[in-house]
Amino acid sequence: MVANNHKSIRIGIFGASGYAGQDLVELLTGHPQVSLVFATSNTYAGQPVPGTALHFIPQGEAAFDSVDAVFLALPHKASAPVVAQALGAGVKVIDLSADLRLETADAYQQWYKVPHPHPELLPVPYGLPEITRDKLHGIDVVAVPGCYPTATLLGLYPLLQTHALAEHAPIIVDAKSGVSGAGREPKPANHFVEVFGNFSPYSPGRTHRHVGEMEQEIARLNGQTGPLIFTPHLLPVDRGLMASIYVTLNDDFHSSQAQSLYEELYGQEPLVQVLPPGQQATLKHVIRQNTCVISLTPVTDHYLHITSVTDNLRKGAASQAIQNFNLMFNLPETTALL
Amino acid sequence: MVANNHKSIRIGIFGASGYAGQDLVELLTGHPQVSLVFATSNTYAGQPVPGTALHFIPQGEAAFDSVDAVFLALPHKASAPVVAQALGAGVKVIDLSADLRLETADAYQQWYKVPHPHPELLPVPYGLPEITRDKLHGIDVVAVPGCYPTATLLGLYPLLQTHALAEHAPIIVDAKSGVSGAGREPKPANHFVEVFGNFSPYSPGRTHRHVGEMEQEIARLNGQTGPLIFTPHLLPVDRGLMASIYVTLNDDFHSSQAQSLYEELYGQEPLVQVLPPGQQATLKHVIRQNTCVISLTPVTDHYLHITSVTDNLRKGAASQAIQNFNLMFNLPETTALL
Amino acid sequence: MVANNHKSIRIGIFGASGYAGQDLVELLTGHPQVSLVFATSNTYAGQPVPGTALHFIPQGEAAFDSVDAVFLALPHKASAPVVAQALGAGVKVIDLSADLRLETADAYQQWYKVPHPHPELLPVPYGLPEITRDKLHGIDVVAVPGCYPTATLLGLYPLLQTHALAEHAPIIVDAKSGVSGAGREPKPANHFVEVFGNFSPYSPGRTHRHVGEMEQEIARLNGQTGPLIFTPHLLPVDRGLMASIYVTLNDDFHSSQAQSLYEELYGQEPLVQVLPPGQQATLKHVIRQNTCVISLTPVTDHYLHITSVTDNLRKGAASQAIQNFNLMFNLPETTALL
Amino acid sequence: MVANNHKSIRIGIFGASGYAGQDLVELLTGHPQVSLVFATSNTYAGQPVPGTALHFIPQGEAAFDSVDAVFLALPHKASAPVVAQALGAGVKVIDLSADLRLETADAYQQWYKVPHPHPELLPVPYGLPEITRDKLHGIDVVAVPGCYPTATLLGLYPLLQTHALAEHAPIIVDAKSGVSGAGREPKPANHFVEVFGNFSPYSPGRTHRHVGEMEQEIARLNGQTGPLIFTPHLLPVDRGLMASIYVTLNDDFHSSQAQSLYEELYGQEPLVQVLPPGQQATLKHVIRQNTCVISLTPVTDHYLHITSVTDNLRKGAASQAIQNFNLMFNLPETTALL
Repeated sequence: MVANNHKSIRIGIFGASGYAGQDLVELLTGHPQVSLVFATSNTYAGQPVPGTALHFIPQGEAAFDSVDAVFLALPHKASAPVVAQALGAGVKVIDLSADLRLETADAYQQWYKVPHPHPELLPVPYGLPEITRDKLHGIDVVAVPGCYPTATLLGLYPLLQTHALAEHAPIIVDAKSGVSGAGREPKPANHFVEVFGNFSPYSPGRTHRHVGEMEQEIARLNGQTGPLIFTPHLLPVDRGLMASIYVTLNDDFHSSQAQSLYEELYGQEPLVQVLPPGQQATLKHVIRQNTCVISLTPVTDHYLHITSVTDNLRKGAASQAIQNFNLMFNLPETTALL
Repeated sequence: MVANNHKSIRIGIFGASGYAGQDLVELLTGHPQVSLVFATSNTYAGQPVPGTALHFIPQGEAAFDSVDAVFLALPHKASAPVVAQALGAGVKVIDLSADLRLETADAYQQWYKVPHPHPELLPVPYGLPEITRDKLHGIDVVAVPGCYPTATLLGLYPLLQTHALAEHAPIIVDAKSGVSGAGREPKPANHFVEVFGNFSPYSPGRTHRHVGEMEQEIARLNGQTGPLIFTPHLLPVDRGLMASIYVTLNDDFHSSQAQSLYEELYGQEPLVQVLPPGQQATLKHVIRQNTCVISLTPVTDHYLHITSVTDNLRKGAASQAIQNFNLMFNLPETTALL
Repeated sequence: MVANNHKSIRIGIFGASGYAGQDLVELLTGHPQVSLVFATSNTYAGQPVPGTALHFIPQGEAAFDSVDAVFLALPHKASAPVVAQALGAGVKVIDLSADLRLETADAYQQWYKVPHPHPELLPVPYGLPEITRDKLHGIDVVAVPGCYPTATLLGLYPLLQTHALAEHAPIIVDAKSGVSGAGREPKPANHFVEVFGNFSPYSPGRTHRHVGEMEQEIARLNGQTGPLIFTPHLLPVDRGLMASIYVTLNDDFHSSQAQSLYEELYGQEPLVQVLPPGQQATLKHVIRQNTCVISLTPVTDHYLHITSVTDNLRKGAASQAIQNFNLMFNLPETTALL
Repeated sequence: MVANNHKSIRIGIFGASGYAGQDLVELLTGHPQVSLVFATSNTYAGQPVPGTALHFIPQGEAAFDSVDAVFLALPHKASAPVVAQALGAGVKVIDLSADLRLETADAYQQWYKVPHPHPELLPVPYGLPEITRDKLHGIDVVAVPGCYPTATLLGLYPLLQTHALAEHAPIIVDAKSGVSGAGREPKPANHFVEVFGNFSPYSPGRTHRHVGEMEQEIARLNGQTGPLIFTPHLLPVDRGLMASIYVTLNDDFHSSQAQSLYEELYGQEPLVQVLPPGQQATLKHVIRQNTCVISLTPVTDHYLHITSVTDNLRKGAASQAIQNFNLMFNLPETTALL
């Protein structure tokens, strides 16, 4: 197997038939510097990869020496061994699983209830470019953030970074995700009849695995916040994610200052859009878009409501992975994304 | 286990956690002569049966000596053995599976691609009361028609019975069903993300198993029709079924006569409604209703278009089963249904 | 026009073709003590009232001397004049509009931005029976609560009544409603294409009109709470409403006490169900049901998350109206509702 | 107003805020030879045109001397006067309305029940490039086909062109369209609550206006077919259209020959895809794609079932308009479409 363009960066995608994998294939086939060499899928091995001349191969047949980088859209625990293999073969890794997101094996054990399969890999740079860009240029391996953390952290970042939150006040996030966020494997919870006309919370309180990831990154930016109270819900749509965030501001920061703070911080960010005052972020703003869109509502002097939306398969997964890839290869960050 | 009311007919439901089973439970708990003694579900054994004080039991624990009749909402091939057991125990059987619908084991083998598990049970009365009522009073076992056959046969019956169709002209049925028609077991085809925003044909031409059942019943009423051309489609809704029927009338019958023919034939039928000229039958007419609703459109002198709708889980399954049950026990036919 | 049963309470419905009106008709035709005498609809006058032998009449043709009570499912401002007429004619009034919910004309002017059309009618008992039952027996006029206030107040009531909330801490309600909550009149916001696949906040912060109503009732129960922070969202479903409530408890009340408090307070309430610990309330619990279903999640020692769901057209409108009607006429409270 | 690129073809879009108009804007902003000069919308005048630096202008302010071509996405009857104006000003016209599709004013009067506003404009080339391409190069005005005619005619074309249909046998088309096909103006029929969970036929038999257009084009290709029997249905999705076609073949043509006939005829067509035997065309094949996808099912020797799908806003409207535009300006036909 040889890349079809000697100028290209040769890449492979693991888990390419899942929903994030499908969007990776679609976006990467439009990337001018990329040559897609293989796409693995144990379930669909032998079938054509849509929009390409390739066929899915079983994971075991992937040849690391045929590529320069791999995107891993695999389940947690299954991803880390492939990370280790790829790095060992000198191949760069963009990992969309949860395996590299937490800094320590202990944290992983706490939230994922299994020992980390490759603790020696940790820690790895956390690939949320709008926040951690300075650590991402030219690196060899990156942990792509989860879908809920992406929308939530981008929604909170300007307040965290400027220490505008009241100390110890809780951060409340009422979140909603389309069904693709739960993966492509058929389960009772994603049966059409169960979801149609329904809306349901799951993993409430502080039990969802993304809580650990979000609190880790919040703490890195600002040590004084209160607990994260996080309730995800399943929305009867295929894609799209909303984080509805409620925060308490400290005495030094008035809710009316938020709009200009966000506009300033995100003014140069091509993939984050802050809506003008009075407009509300909706799923339609981001479906099949690579951006995160944010709207702000000052509620009282010191209470602020923030709505942050993404397409969970794009800025919440595939397009953020490509944004990281571009940084790792020193390409313009939004290549294939704008 | 003893029925909780000495006046009641004691019944059991097999396969009670499936979608048809759920509607059976809901309707039968409102039936004044019925006492629900058990409900089986191997998958949900031990969990409460919604709307009742019972818990699901594994199929193997069902006691035939505790009941007077059983409703079988089981997969084909799994149902016939239970039919044989129940009849052997002197228990009446209302079978919603396909196992008793075809008259011969050969036909079963042809359409279901497996040998019939109990050929000695065949033939059994076909329980479409508006057409076969005279064979259903007081009987011990009945085959409840499939969802597509119910809507299609009720849509065609007046024309078949009066020999109004052109000989050998095909009967074209473009059908659409909500996703509950495909069962509760999670599969790629009923994953929310695959169905949402989609609409897709399946088993086209003459390959769907219900074709055999429909042609058998058509032939019983009228030997001169042409082939059935049948295309089912999966609709992105939870329940509801439409058969869009296109027929050619013979020279003795003008399309303008259809409306009065249907109104006359179905005028006394409590569970079939013929809409006035100019109104079209839609899914909303029948969702969670126990009726079949039909509208007629004369297209040209001798082409007629018929739209026939049911709730696939009601008149297409559970409520038709109860209609049969009422006839078997000489109760008013619409008890618990109107 | 004469009631068709001398034992019946004769009633009329104003605004009977709207979504709440449709559910009123459906539920009241099943009420054993009620005779439906007329149903008004200016838009659909002359057309049949589904499920009845009546036809819609224009509002101007409604005869108050033919009825004992009227249900008003009219827009705010249009309802109060009919209330005045009905009471003047000695007819009892169940008003589903906003016109009688606020205690003062000033509050009405503040939230609805128009002068109250009949300030002399105020105040009127607020018909949330689980909270205000003692004021509702035998009365002549009642204000039926809004859909968001019903779910929110029932979700908060045990905490308010026992003064378990931290003083001055905000009450955060992230709410979601199906599209029928926005009425039947076609508008850009309820066009199928705009709603399908979307999810959107509206009237965020403290701008929604129901905020005034909710704070009034909260204050009546407990004067020490902080501000209500309320964000409603439009869900892509036809019916169903969820209030996701986040509260801070005071030092005397631990989040682990909430479950037993709610179970005790609502234990005897036939139309409120508290789910066991670990189960989450979803829309499917309440669609076409007359109940409010509540689940509780202790998040930390003093933060509690409450999910409260109703069918916005049932316990959020029509069935609560009938519950009030039953109390006004000293009938069993759940007649026609269980 | 000056085009922002001296190499560009300057264009204007009338009716740019409607659903077809929105897709025109989206696709044309990606067209390398096009400069969008204005976009009219009387309803949204003054608001930003999404994805551009323009604001909608009222139709009356459109300056024909600022453009080389106009796309008209206007209602029938409103479009013809603008066609006349544009042609008078030497501006090319791509008309998406029905005003130019029928060859004679009489036919227009028959199907649209109003006199044709500008009969002197007729006839105009019918812009279905796969069928009428030879008449479209370099022309000044084109009638873009309707959404149902596009899918239906492409589904029938190989059979018509080779005279494979049985003479006088009816052509049966059971069609389904997403709600965007009914336009953006809010009406009871497109209210979310009315469409959600529903599926409904409309304009059945031979009453839909597109019947005239389809029969005109069928007759042009083949004078011996029978009547078109056409039933459109409203699908509960935002976009996508399926024509389910049932035809009788003549004695010289066997259904098994259809696959190779279609593959041959459409083999070089970039915007029509014939699926391999056994695969069925679904809406997912074409949503937000510019293609028509066709699958064939031989039912019996001489009955054939054809499924033809498009995105009603793309190949059924906007992308077909651009395909015509490209031909009119002698550009590669698929510019901005592949």
